[in-house]
Amino acid sequence: MKPVKVGILGLGTVGSGTFNVLKRNQKEIRGRAGRGIEVVMVADRNVEMARKIVNGDCEVVSDGNLLVNHPDIDIVVELIGGYDVARDFVLKAIANGKHVVTANKALLALHGNEIFEAAQNRKVIVAFEAAVAGGIPIIKALREGLTANRIEWIAGIINGTTNFILSEMREKGLDFDTVLKEAQELGYAESDPTFDIEGFDAAHKATIMSAIAFGVPVQFDRAYVEGITKLEAIDIKYAEQLGYRIKLLGITKRMENGIELRVHPTLIPAKRLIANVEGAMNAVLVNSDAVGASLYYGKGAGSEPTASAVIADLVDIARLESVDPEHRVPHLAFQPDALTNTPILPMSEVTTSYYLRMQVKDQPGVLADITRILADLQISIDAFLQKEPLEGETLVDIIILTHMTQEKNMDAAIEKVENLPTVMGKVTKIRLEELM
Amino acid sequence: MKPVKVGILGLGTVGSGTFNVLKRNQKEIRGRAGRGIEVVMVADRNVEMARKIVNGDCEVVSDGNLLVNHPDIDIVVELIGGYDVARDFVLKAIANGKHVVTANKALLALHGNEIFEAAQNRKVIVAFEAAVAGGIPIIKALREGLTANRIEWIAGIINGTTNFILSEMREKGLDFDTVLKEAQELGYAESDPTFDIEGFDAAHKATIMSAIAFGVPVQFDRAYVEGITKLEAIDIKYAEQLGYRIKLLGITKRMENGIELRVHPTLIPAKRLIANVEGAMNAVLVNSDAVGASLYYGKGAGSEPTASAVIADLVDIARLESVDPEHRVPHLAFQPDALTNTPILPMSEVTTSYYLRMQVKDQPGVLADITRILADLQISIDAFLQKEPLEGETLVDIIILTHMTQEKNMDAAIEKVENLPTVMGKVTKIRLEELM
Repeated sequence: MKPVKVGILGLGTVGSGTFNVLKRNQKEIRGRAGRGIEVVMVADRNVEMARKIVNGDCEVVSDGNLLVNHPDIDIVVELIGGYDVARDFVLKAIANGKHVVTANKALLALHGNEIFEAAQNRKVIVAFEAAVAGGIPIIKALREGLTANRIEWIAGIINGTTNFILSEMREKGLDFDTVLKEAQELGYAESDPTFDIEGFDAAHKATIMSAIAFGVPVQFDRAYVEGITKLEAIDIKYAEQLGYRIKLLGITKRMENGIELRVHPTLIPAKRLIANVEGAMNAVLVNSDAVGASLYYGKGAGSEPTASAVIADLVDIARLESVDPEHRVPHLAFQPDALTNTPILPMSEVTTSYYLRMQVKDQPGVLADITRILADLQISIDAFLQKEPLEGETLVDIIILTHMTQEKNMDAAIEKVENLPTVMGKVTKIRLEELM
Repeated sequence: MKPVKVGILGLGTVGSGTFNVLKRNQKEIRGRAGRGIEVVMVADRNVEMARKIVNGDCEVVSDGNLLVNHPDIDIVVELIGGYDVARDFVLKAIANGKHVVTANKALLALHGNEIFEAAQNRKVIVAFEAAVAGGIPIIKALREGLTANRIEWIAGIINGTTNFILSEMREKGLDFDTVLKEAQELGYAESDPTFDIEGFDAAHKATIMSAIAFGVPVQFDRAYVEGITKLEAIDIKYAEQLGYRIKLLGITKRMENGIELRVHPTLIPAKRLIANVEGAMNAVLVNSDAVGASLYYGKGAGSEPTASAVIADLVDIARLESVDPEHRVPHLAFQPDALTNTPILPMSEVTTSYYLRMQVKDQPGVLADITRILADLQISIDAFLQKEPLEGETLVDIIILTHMTQEKNMDAAIEKVENLPTVMGKVTKIRLEELM
């Protein structure tokens, strides 16, 4: 059977991993795909480095245009990352009638709708398993494995850098800055870690999962994004005392009046399986009506885990290219005419539980004032923790876990609490999900 | 687009779940599949009960032959279970050019090769996501999600009944018989629980996963099967003291000279994510060269979780029916001509670690004798636990964890240990896997 011919744009970490795994596991992959998967060209600005990696096995060019315009190439693998150049190449490849495989979550979260529409019109496939949670086949699970289900919500640890940092902060009781430095030294965090620690990377992935789960266009601009840079070690400690762990979760949830799409540090019960996902590992928890909870766990980044997802897409295309285009697995799980315009809710309308920490004067009536404010706003208290003041201290920490309420309601309550003369400084607010 | 027409053989727990979910989530499923999935006939010997469930929505017959021979039906869903009748219907459906979806692990573990060959020749699809781990899309993960990988081993909690029993035994310190009764009362165990508690159900599933992972025919007759009926509460307790939990695992592993395929109670480190899978939940841990460890968790049985897997197969067929048959996803993940005859190793040649418990006389030199026997057979000790004798007792429990060795070697050592005059009765042997 005719091999499928592949060109790889970008031979960095994932690109070289893809090249190497395709070569090393050639026989197994061919046995599964039913035909060879042949890399005929790679394009990288660092031609010399690329030549070393491919070691004469295929042509190396510096100009990606040569690759996306190459008449022999069936599938273009885009692994350069970023928005502009990648978008340009992907659209050119599609225009040239080539299938595209990409690991570029940022590109799809921002320009996915345009790209999928172009692919739909040109009757080519754009596959992106590698864009979410690296080696975990979560896109396939959502798009094909759970097709019977009405998906209710997804909550994922989908950024390894932040999960590593949070795991270290908890285990060693260290603060954010110390652990970030450690993570950078170990290669778990970039020298400019903004993208990861501020939650953007997780939000890109959550945006893609949200679209696939609920049959809506990708809408990154509507996502609420909050990273872990302001998280204090003391809150991780208090959370643990209350039976919770703090994880950076990408959450998307179907509500009556719209869809929640948000990334933020979240308290989750320590006994949940996903709470025990430590270090740089990823896991995605899906709640759907027929299956209930299902969880997908593995390495969310790195050369070969991500390459595994890229190659799975290549094998899918090699196997299924001959399906008539109307019957293919749709890019966003739902057929284009079945997509809806269900709105993404603003954060003020999100409903969740909360962890609140505040410093108060150690005197009678303080707690009564605070609980009165919450009660007036119909916010009920689930748990309460008061730390005894150290000798000579006059301020004590109070921690309150609330039941579910709307974010705007909670913010109104916090404003009132902060105005109490007995409450010092700001109230720390961290969202809490029971994940049941 | 033309709807795909389905007939369901057997309207029991999974059959009625399939019918109900298809109806309830009709709109979502159609939006994903790109065409309707229409149940046109169900066959069940209890016609009256079946009529009540379908409530006039489709034809009900008592004779399955009417269904497998029905000219309008595209896909036959086999949910009657068992071997003979099911095999007969499935082969007839295939001969009639119909695709088949089945949840019948027993049928596939025993007659899969014959069925897949018939399907291959007739150019129809036999899909069986529901046969392993219910609602967890593990077949899809192995067959499509991990195609880039050389799979090294799989270890799965793939029987909910036994995992429920083991969880209860550990949490409550109860013995097997007591918990089995509780499980039967709660509906987690059948009135005749043999199939589950003796490990056969798990072995059927492990057999199927083994074939898909390693590209070999299904070979249930070569599987080693040991259930949990002889497991004592004391071993669960000792294991816990040593940092391990005991789970009934289905294990299949690629070795240099063959494939291991075995089901037995297994000590695994308590800190592994899979060790924390409790109650009737299932989880499958896959270790493969590119991704490393990945884990898939969810409900492994029950009406709607299993129905979810059945319907995912229906959607796959609805989407991908038009692929030319040579390019379809192969039944056993590998193309028929890429399957190998790698042998399944006999249990005596399996390599693993061990937990040993024995009662010995509380006198000098006992331990020296035992460790000498192990050392002579090149078995090294990883951990050791000796319980102080109770007042007035002269016998003490000794627990030894060993490093890896071959089963026949360990059995030879145990025979010698049991012959020591200071060792009373039999040595309890439980296998141990680090799952790293």
